[in-house]
Amino acid sequence: AAVDKGVDFANYFCTYAYLYHQKEMLSDRVRMDAYFNAVFRNKHHFQGKAVLDVGTGSGILAIWSAQAGARKVYAVEATKMAEHARALVKANNLEGIVEVIEGSIEDITLPEKVDVIISEWMGYFLLRESMFDSVICARDRWLKPGGLMYPSHARMWVAPIRSRVVDQKKDDYDRTMEDWYNFVDETKASYGVDMNIFTKPFKDEQRKYYLQTSLWNNLHPEQVIGDAGIIKDIDCSTATIDDIRSVRSSISSSITENNRFCAYAGWFDVHFRGNKQNPAREEIELTTAPSEEHGTHWGQQVFLIHPPLNVEKGDALIIDVSMDRSQENHRLMEVEFGCEIRHCSGKLRPPLKHKFYIE
Amino acid sequence: AAVDKGVDFANYFCTYAYLYHQKEMLSDRVRMDAYFNAVFRNKHHFQGKAVLDVGTGSGILAIWSAQAGARKVYAVEATKMAEHARALVKANNLEGIVEVIEGSIEDITLPEKVDVIISEWMGYFLLRESMFDSVICARDRWLKPGGLMYPSHARMWVAPIRSRVVDQKKDDYDRTMEDWYNFVDETKASYGVDMNIFTKPFKDEQRKYYLQTSLWNNLHPEQVIGDAGIIKDIDCSTATIDDIRSVRSSISSSITENNRFCAYAGWFDVHFRGNKQNPAREEIELTTAPSEEHGTHWGQQVFLIHPPLNVEKGDALIIDVSMDRSQENHRLMEVEFGCEIRHCSGKLRPPLKHKFYIE
Ligand SMILES: Nc1ncnc2c1ncn2[C@@H]1O[C@H](CSCC[C@H](N)C(=O)O)[C@@H](O)[C@H]1O
Ligand SMILES: Nc1ncnc2c1ncn2[C@@H]1O[C@H](CSCC[C@H](N)C(=O)O)[C@@H](O)[C@H]1O
Repeated sequence: AAVDKGVDFANYFCTYAYLYHQKEMLSDRVRMDAYFNAVFRNKHHFQGKAVLDVGTGSGILAIWSAQAGARKVYAVEATKMAEHARALVKANNLEGIVEVIEGSIEDITLPEKVDVIISEWMGYFLLRESMFDSVICARDRWLKPGGLMYPSHARMWVAPIRSRVVDQKKDDYDRTMEDWYNFVDETKASYGVDMNIFTKPFKDEQRKYYLQTSLWNNLHPEQVIGDAGIIKDIDCSTATIDDIRSVRSSISSSITENNRFCAYAGWFDVHFRGNKQNPAREEIELTTAPSEEHGTHWGQQVFLIHPPLNVEKGDALIIDVSMDRSQENHRLMEVEFGCEIRHCSGKLRPPLKHKFYIE
Repeated sequence: AAVDKGVDFANYFCTYAYLYHQKEMLSDRVRMDAYFNAVFRNKHHFQGKAVLDVGTGSGILAIWSAQAGARKVYAVEATKMAEHARALVKANNLEGIVEVIEGSIEDITLPEKVDVIISEWMGYFLLRESMFDSVICARDRWLKPGGLMYPSHARMWVAPIRSRVVDQKKDDYDRTMEDWYNFVDETKASYGVDMNIFTKPFKDEQRKYYLQTSLWNNLHPEQVIGDAGIIKDIDCSTATIDDIRSVRSSISSSITENNRFCAYAGWFDVHFRGNKQNPAREEIELTTAPSEEHGTHWGQQVFLIHPPLNVEKGDALIIDVSMDRSQENHRLMEVEFGCEIRHCSGKLRPPLKHKFYIE
């Protein structure tokens, strides 16, 4: 289905037009340190070069690129934030180098091809927001052959976890349904209309929003109860939109402690490695894995399993993941997790299958 | 500016497609009792008649109209909620009378003109959502001459109030700005970029969202510290879109107790009176005024004044209100309040002027 630009703006871009939201990203030290180090420890990639910043937001990555020695930086931003970026560039005396262009990357044209594309395009669980599509489009149109992608690689991870949120969500859901039954009774008694026909669709609606919608969470590493596995490995220099439109993968994970298996958790990392002909002097990693001290604004996405399952150290899991874009909004996702659990005794348990929405 | 239907759907209609949201309205006893009594105590208006329900949602008003004896009810709903409404009609054995039509009232056609238009179109402070436009459109196209509007009249009220929220909002705002200054310092120190140029626009953004955006509140009647006045009186049978596109009014209000003047509050009421040729047997009122026991889901809209002002019993206020639709979204509003305060001693205080957004 074709994307209506006005609707996409209302649903997606509009939040990026607020400085408040840009500030949230600019205050994420893990994110900032990674990009900062990636640029300044690899100045040779920027010196004298033409750079394109896809979705410049406040302008930060474009400014760093210029400060690292770029000859010219094209900083493209779809929202009115472009005006703020332009002011920031000027206040930092870089208007001779950084050119802010307001427009979506798909629509604008540049006067030349570039040596480097830098972009911070990652959404929750990497692919939410589908902004990497725009980076691919920029790369295919504006990157010189052999040019560099910042970041150069990206990976998606999944692991089994424990989480008390599973109980809380179930309680919320139960309370909401109890309230619903009262509502149906009262509406019949007071107003003579039997709403029981809505019980099933209301329940489905609530299941979707309480139980089947993934949650943002900043997990403690100890909540991870089995090995994490990689479900997707992306080379930003070569990946096509078809490569990332959906994810199909199967990983095996061994349970590392007796515990409750409450949810799957998903996160990502990206790397700044340059490329074969032109490698990074220092490779930088930005990871959003569960961490006590180095949490990010992305946190992790948690997909709750109702009811949770008791598992034992040594249980062998095979986790199947299948992720697609939602039909109604190409920037949101639907994920199916299947899980086969072989008990450490060798016995196979009934397989799990759960569907989730990343909203 | 023309309204993009897709964008309007994304911004406005989409919430109404959830049973959860319909339930919130269906659980508002004040609202429900008013419409229920309006219909069932004036059955003579419905018996044997053709009725149009503009925005039927769950279908409730259409079903009541049928139960009160309507010959035919056209129940028009723009969202997928129409399917649920159809199921409810069937479950209540009214499919011979109530015809649910999915579509926006502006686009659909009916096979006949109707005797009664019923609709629950009221938004916060009455006019938010601008749904009355659709009712006017329906009336002008589908109501027989002399036909009835349910409700028949609507009024907007304003009063001076006290509220501790004014202090809390100011604290929040101050904290956010403090945090901002730290952020600017740290960004300069750690990342070599001076973001101070964003301070003014960030402050403006925050002022808008913390201080100048109206708040939903369920006020206690004792929080009203001066006489309430009517700023708009609408006859639903004759009002045109031009009549309601903006509100310009001036009311006088006398302070009834020594207190802090912290905010203007706005609310509305509607009446079901039938019309001159065909009056209601029993007039029903639905009011959203501050009330200890009869609060509604609409609450009141509160427009905070920073800093609040000490006022005394007998102080005479002249409050000017000017409300317009927001440029970016015709369903949202911008309001300006001016206030002239004559102290009980006769002395005139410096006039107030504040601009607010109803988001
Ligand atoms: N197709 C597109 N064209 C232009 N800008 C886009 C875009 N898709 C997303 N964006 C913009 O990309 C930004 C992503 S957020 C990252 C902002 C900034 N580069 C930083 O690292 O702090 C948002 O401001 C968003 O509006
Ligand atoms: N132009 C339009 N055409 C059709 N439906 C509309 C409309 N504007 C608003 N609506 C619908 O009107 C409803 C208003 S809420 C009221 C629902 C129901 N009549 C009740 O009283 O409980 C929403 O469901 C909304 O989707």
